[in-house]
Amino acid sequence: MGKKKLQGKIKKASRFLRKKGKPPGTVTYMGMRDKEASKVSIISYNETEVRSYRPKNIQEILDEKNSNHVSWIDISGLTDEAFVENLGAQLHLNTLILEDTVNVNIRPKVDEYEDYIFAVLKMLYLDAADEVVIEQVALVLVKDAVLVFQEVEMDVFNAVRERIETKSGRVRRMGADYLFFSLMDAIVDNYFVILEHISAKVDHLEDEVYDHPNPEVARKIQDLKKEVMKVRRVISPVKEMVGRLIDTQNPLITKDTKLFLRDILDHTIEINESLQIYREMIMSLMEMYMSNMSNKMNEVMKVLTIMASIFIPLTFIAGIYGMNFDNMPELHSKNGYFVVWGVMIAIFIGMMFYFKRRRWL
Amino acid sequence: MGKKKLQGKIKKASRFLRKKGKPPGTVTYMGMRDKEASKVSIISYNETEVRSYRPKNIQEILDEKNSNHVSWIDISGLTDEAFVENLGAQLHLNTLILEDTVNVNIRPKVDEYEDYIFAVLKMLYLDAADEVVIEQVALVLVKDAVLVFQEVEMDVFNAVRERIETKSGRVRRMGADYLFFSLMDAIVDNYFVILEHISAKVDHLEDEVYDHPNPEVARKIQDLKKEVMKVRRVISPVKEMVGRLIDTQNPLITKDTKLFLRDILDHTIEINESLQIYREMIMSLMEMYMSNMSNKMNEVMKVLTIMASIFIPLTFIAGIYGMNFDNMPELHSKNGYFVVWGVMIAIFIGMMFYFKRRRWL
Amino acid sequence: MGKKKLQGKIKKASRFLRKKGKPPGTVTYMGMRDKEASKVSIISYNETEVRSYRPKNIQEILDEKNSNHVSWIDISGLTDEAFVENLGAQLHLNTLILEDTVNVNIRPKVDEYEDYIFAVLKMLYLDAADEVVIEQVALVLVKDAVLVFQEVEMDVFNAVRERIETKSGRVRRMGADYLFFSLMDAIVDNYFVILEHISAKVDHLEDEVYDHPNPEVARKIQDLKKEVMKVRRVISPVKEMVGRLIDTQNPLITKDTKLFLRDILDHTIEINESLQIYREMIMSLMEMYMSNMSNKMNEVMKVLTIMASIFIPLTFIAGIYGMNFDNMPELHSKNGYFVVWGVMIAIFIGMMFYFKRRRWL
Amino acid sequence: MGKKKLQGKIKKASRFLRKKGKPPGTVTYMGMRDKEASKVSIISYNETEVRSYRPKNIQEILDEKNSNHVSWIDISGLTDEAFVENLGAQLHLNTLILEDTVNVNIRPKVDEYEDYIFAVLKMLYLDAADEVVIEQVALVLVKDAVLVFQEVEMDVFNAVRERIETKSGRVRRMGADYLFFSLMDAIVDNYFVILEHISAKVDHLEDEVYDHPNPEVARKIQDLKKEVMKVRRVISPVKEMVGRLIDTQNPLITKDTKLFLRDILDHTIEINESLQIYREMIMSLMEMYMSNMSNKMNEVMKVLTIMASIFIPLTFIAGIYGMNFDNMPELHSKNGYFVVWGVMIAIFIGMMFYFKRRRWL
Amino acid sequence: MGKKKLQGKIKKASRFLRKKGKPPGTVTYMGMRDKEASKVSIISYNETEVRSYRPKNIQEILDEKNSNHVSWIDISGLTDEAFVENLGAQLHLNTLILEDTVNVNIRPKVDEYEDYIFAVLKMLYLDAADEVVIEQVALVLVKDAVLVFQEVEMDVFNAVRERIETKSGRVRRMGADYLFFSLMDAIVDNYFVILEHISAKVDHLEDEVYDHPNPEVARKIQDLKKEVMKVRRVISPVKEMVGRLIDTQNPLITKDTKLFLRDILDHTIEINESLQIYREMIMSLMEMYMSNMSNKMNEVMKVLTIMASIFIPLTFIAGIYGMNFDNMPELHSKNGYFVVWGVMIAIFIGMMFYFKRRRWL
Repeated sequence: MGKKKLQGKIKKASRFLRKKGKPPGTVTYMGMRDKEASKVSIISYNETEVRSYRPKNIQEILDEKNSNHVSWIDISGLTDEAFVENLGAQLHLNTLILEDTVNVNIRPKVDEYEDYIFAVLKMLYLDAADEVVIEQVALVLVKDAVLVFQEVEMDVFNAVRERIETKSGRVRRMGADYLFFSLMDAIVDNYFVILEHISAKVDHLEDEVYDHPNPEVARKIQDLKKEVMKVRRVISPVKEMVGRLIDTQNPLITKDTKLFLRDILDHTIEINESLQIYREMIMSLMEMYMSNMSNKMNEVMKVLTIMASIFIPLTFIAGIYGMNFDNMPELHSKNGYFVVWGVMIAIFIGMMFYFKRRRWL
Repeated sequence: MGKKKLQGKIKKASRFLRKKGKPPGTVTYMGMRDKEASKVSIISYNETEVRSYRPKNIQEILDEKNSNHVSWIDISGLTDEAFVENLGAQLHLNTLILEDTVNVNIRPKVDEYEDYIFAVLKMLYLDAADEVVIEQVALVLVKDAVLVFQEVEMDVFNAVRERIETKSGRVRRMGADYLFFSLMDAIVDNYFVILEHISAKVDHLEDEVYDHPNPEVARKIQDLKKEVMKVRRVISPVKEMVGRLIDTQNPLITKDTKLFLRDILDHTIEINESLQIYREMIMSLMEMYMSNMSNKMNEVMKVLTIMASIFIPLTFIAGIYGMNFDNMPELHSKNGYFVVWGVMIAIFIGMMFYFKRRRWL
Repeated sequence: MGKKKLQGKIKKASRFLRKKGKPPGTVTYMGMRDKEASKVSIISYNETEVRSYRPKNIQEILDEKNSNHVSWIDISGLTDEAFVENLGAQLHLNTLILEDTVNVNIRPKVDEYEDYIFAVLKMLYLDAADEVVIEQVALVLVKDAVLVFQEVEMDVFNAVRERIETKSGRVRRMGADYLFFSLMDAIVDNYFVILEHISAKVDHLEDEVYDHPNPEVARKIQDLKKEVMKVRRVISPVKEMVGRLIDTQNPLITKDTKLFLRDILDHTIEINESLQIYREMIMSLMEMYMSNMSNKMNEVMKVLTIMASIFIPLTFIAGIYGMNFDNMPELHSKNGYFVVWGVMIAIFIGMMFYFKRRRWL
Repeated sequence: MGKKKLQGKIKKASRFLRKKGKPPGTVTYMGMRDKEASKVSIISYNETEVRSYRPKNIQEILDEKNSNHVSWIDISGLTDEAFVENLGAQLHLNTLILEDTVNVNIRPKVDEYEDYIFAVLKMLYLDAADEVVIEQVALVLVKDAVLVFQEVEMDVFNAVRERIETKSGRVRRMGADYLFFSLMDAIVDNYFVILEHISAKVDHLEDEVYDHPNPEVARKIQDLKKEVMKVRRVISPVKEMVGRLIDTQNPLITKDTKLFLRDILDHTIEINESLQIYREMIMSLMEMYMSNMSNKMNEVMKVLTIMASIFIPLTFIAGIYGMNFDNMPELHSKNGYFVVWGVMIAIFIGMMFYFKRRRWL
Repeated sequence: MGKKKLQGKIKKASRFLRKKGKPPGTVTYMGMRDKEASKVSIISYNETEVRSYRPKNIQEILDEKNSNHVSWIDISGLTDEAFVENLGAQLHLNTLILEDTVNVNIRPKVDEYEDYIFAVLKMLYLDAADEVVIEQVALVLVKDAVLVFQEVEMDVFNAVRERIETKSGRVRRMGADYLFFSLMDAIVDNYFVILEHISAKVDHLEDEVYDHPNPEVARKIQDLKKEVMKVRRVISPVKEMVGRLIDTQNPLITKDTKLFLRDILDHTIEINESLQIYREMIMSLMEMYMSNMSNKMNEVMKVLTIMASIFIPLTFIAGIYGMNFDNMPELHSKNGYFVVWGVMIAIFIGMMFYFKRRRWL
């Protein structure tokens, strides 16, 4: 694990160096995947027909874009910087947005240009080890087409694809802006899975805090806090993004679609509120953990104090009569030993009574 | 209990899955009740007459809506998705609001459309176990009618029903918007019962923190904190909602009714402030609990220290004269034993005096 | 005390029930006083003459209002709901403000109507037990008159009455709006007495935290925190209220009076800042208390550790030579006993030196 | 000290009573100095000549104001309320600002009137005991003159006076508004001395927290926190004040001077940021103090535990062989005593090894 | 170290005194470097040619500025106040900005004037000891030229210089405003190196907190917190600065360049968010440290309690049979000694069992 982490750090550092000093607008892949060719797939549809295929070259993509179908042009794999730059140039996209497309570390945002709208979102999912993984998705809405740039093809868009193919819902009847919305909606919908996951973890840690408070639990609480911070960071800008899309004057987004965007807005407000609440709950967990620790300490100290308070005086009495003075009258009385036992038992009972009254027992 | 909780979680999860991947606008019941038919009841009134009945079919509802009476159309039971969808379509309601109507988990909100206003609120009440339960209520204000969608028929609207039937207050003299306001008002008025309940719990926990601070109390404090968070989450959006209704240009809401909405606004501000204060008081409780725990620890340690500080030196002295050296002159002096007792008592008194002066006794 | 508190709660609850379910605008007294008739007194003045009397019936009040004097109509006692409702109706006041007038629990606010301005403020004073008591005052500014609704006649307005009678200050030369301002000013001026009281308590608790930190002090700190919260809650809305009066377009308030209102605004800003600072100081007090507690614990533990660390090893040595082995050569050496004493004293001195160096002594 | 403090409180209280109940606009000195006559001095200058003198009566001040020189009219000593009131009346100043002038406890603010601008600032300096002292300065900018009201003549304006006399900088070439700015600038510049002082205290306390954490240090930290609160309270409103002067439409302040006011604005932003940072640093100090205390406790407990854990078992073994049973075979073996020593040493070494491994030694 | 620190403080103090009392607009170097002459270098370019040289006098700089090339005029060394003042006067720059240029302690800001735009930024880099060092850079954008004022020549601009010389990127094709942007971009890009450094420190401290929590780690955490505060203070104003440049109406900045400035804006938002997250993580670290300390204390106390609870009662029993009473029947029974051993072992096992069940072992 440690080794893997170390390699991660080296990669991260070198990735950073790759970029530094280059002029702005340089299209440099900033992710951590190895280089491979980008894969392009296209779904082209209108109300009456659907066509799904892999274009052979960029020209085919350009032709598709100019058809009177709505086209969903999906580009998976962003390591091939030259391809992305070339494609972008042919589509007259600003080089700054191409830079952002392959820089998989940027903050979610919307940039409006005259002929297209560029949006970057983060896809969240749980990996095999149940950890939250973040993938970047860049969407470009142009007239009659949506370009989707992602590092790997993701499952989350399958539902949308299916709806197009089976003609369910509105998507086939509406324009590219509705497709754009549907893809964003699919991503945001998926955030609820992450919320569910965090919620379950909070519940689980709450049980652990009450049942077995130990440093391992504290560590898990802190780790969850960091996870929530990480998630919040990529989700919270979405609210503002969607708000800007709703307020935009750009004719690429129709009034009908804005009604649906309002729905995403409601979701993001809800998600942000939930994250805020989880955050507060995690802070409470830590507080509770500390309080339980302190309570355990109290318990430990009570046991010590009770044991010591009872036996130290008794041992002192035994010590007295273990002294070797020549002249100790008690030692020679017939019942001295039994009287001492009586005194000790009396002290013991008195102590127990005292501790009982102080509610220490 | 644990089992019930588990089942709750399974239901919650499956409910979530029910929705995922479906196109937006799909009317899917998201609550946890079993399927049963929706029950519709109508109260139709104007200044001179009232009529209360259960319509036999949707047509009767539509006819009612078009009468020149004000109609309160109450739909209880949201599991029958087809019915809700059908009714909504006949009334030309946007499918997005139908989706929200049966999704009983959404955030309180107001959506304005040209011909109707859609509001979602949360009804709060205490169940048999004195826990806060949240039910969703969706209100649709159309011309001359208010539709109320709720999971079960709730008592809270009885007062309004009575006022209509007995012609008390203004409701019979005013339009559908005043009915809409009256229903919201009934819900918000009920929030004060919850506040009262939280206030009582805070007072009770305060007494417990001072009288018997123990981990169980800390847990109750944390549980109350979570309850307040839960309540705050569903109440706090109401302020903004009502504010938007007051500012709306929509002719469905008259100026007279806005005066009354301002009254609800004042209430929600007051409720939010109270919740904020309860929150701070709960945080103080936790602080006080920690301080009391730490104080108890101090007490325990003092007892230990006093006992040990007094008897350990005395035991040492006894130990000295328990040694078996051949040549220990004190042992053979006639009053040695009594002198030692004298020394011990002197030490004891000195110690007591010392602890007294340090205010440990 | 406990009993009184309980009765308070029952009253509070029943008061709450009194209101629930009634239509908005119902004039229901929500305070805790017993029913008695309202007392009305009027001061009527212009630059040349003053007249002070108790009107016999409502008609006399109405006549007064229509005279060309400025009239201060003071209504004490709000339990007589019928009287308030009747008076309000005759003066064409909205029933909502009458409801608020007798509901002595509402938040300070200003409501503007076309012909009158309604303001609710809280009067704060210290009772015999030096606790902060809150009384509600409702002011209605109409043309040429100010109505003052209060539960009992309060001293705070005496200064204004005197100024009217002795013609000191501006009040006799100016209109009803200046009277309205003067009454608000008297209330706000009195807040400084409460601030003074809180400030003195903070100083006193600070001394106690340093001199005798004990759980009772912690409790007092928490109680003061609650008191500040309570005071802040009724004072903080005043700032916004006065701001709205300054910004109003309503001709009832002249430009000259607005200059004076700005003065109240400055005071409320100052008071809010002071409360904020007291709040932070109280938090510091609690922090300091915890730190002192923890320091006391350290002291206790040091005593224990020093005593135990010195005497446990010595007792061990004594124990060694208290053993009864047949063959223990040291026991028979002539100076054995004195050598052991020497060793013990050496250990004692060494320990003292060690603790000295660690600054524990 | 205690007595002085008490007297301070009595004065404060009586000062408060002096004001209560009086009509607004009453010019009542609210400071704590004894009554004495105000001293007036005037510096009158234009680009070519400077004249500095003490006017004999108010008429001379009025004449000066109407000359075509820029006049700096300095009034020291505010206890002479009649003089201030008279002067204000002659200059046609609103009585509200005269009230504020002699009320040395008000919040920094700017009030704009048609013919003059009134500003109140707080002068901060360190007294002999290195404590922060706050003095109020009121500035009134009228056409061609600036009136300065202060309790005592202060050093801080000497630099400005010198610049006027030596004709250095711009002041002689510009109008009264630039003089007004210069005086404010002198006050704000002086705030940096206080910042420096706080910064030094923070550094000093940081060293103390690490080197000798003790309750005295905690108290100093809390005192510094209060000092920062006090300073922040009088400095933070200045930012808003200056902002309003920059935005004002009043022709008394020229565009050129606004450029300089922007400079003060930058300074106040910087000062506020610094105070915020010191505040956070002080909170960190307290946190660090608590952590060091807790660490010290750990150290103390470790010593106790190590001593007790080693010697208690050994003492037990010695106790065993101090028993007086007739039949204890070990006692009669020749090497019994030496074997027991061996066992004890082994236990001792084992314990040391164990504590070493747990890093307690 | 201590001595160096002290000298630093003396320098800081004297630097402060240097400024105090001088009129605003006085050009006084406020840094801590020793006096030396400023070095000027110029890069002058257009799309076709580049020229890089050191001008011999100010006239040459003025000539350059008036050429139709874009000129980058770099002034290193700000101790030569006269040179800076002279140069500024020749370029008709406001004396206030010259004052700010050599006052290396001011807050990052943008000031717009009619003919030029003045920006102050902070360059951050890591020194040999891996501590964050802050250098001020002042940029002045005039028509066709950018003036750069810095204390020493810095590496960070090398990349821009290279791009100009090698004609890579857009810089040669665009105007002075793009150069202005490029320099700001180079500075902001470098902030990521500092973020990386902080991130690494956070990770490292996290490991230390879990593995070896000790006071040294707590100190490092607090130091890192201060470092983050320091960095945040100089970075956070940049966001607002860039925002103002984007919104400016000043024709010196073209629409094309604003697109690029938006890129810097995105970066600064991202950096601020990261710093906020690091801040929260550092607070979590401290929390975790405290929790680990408290856990260690629990461990220590448990060991003590277990040892004491087991051996104190056993020692008491041994003490009993060490007493010297004449009449102690057990002493003379043949198996008394062995029975006592049995009892002791039973107590020992019972205790172990008890501690096991309480999970203390």
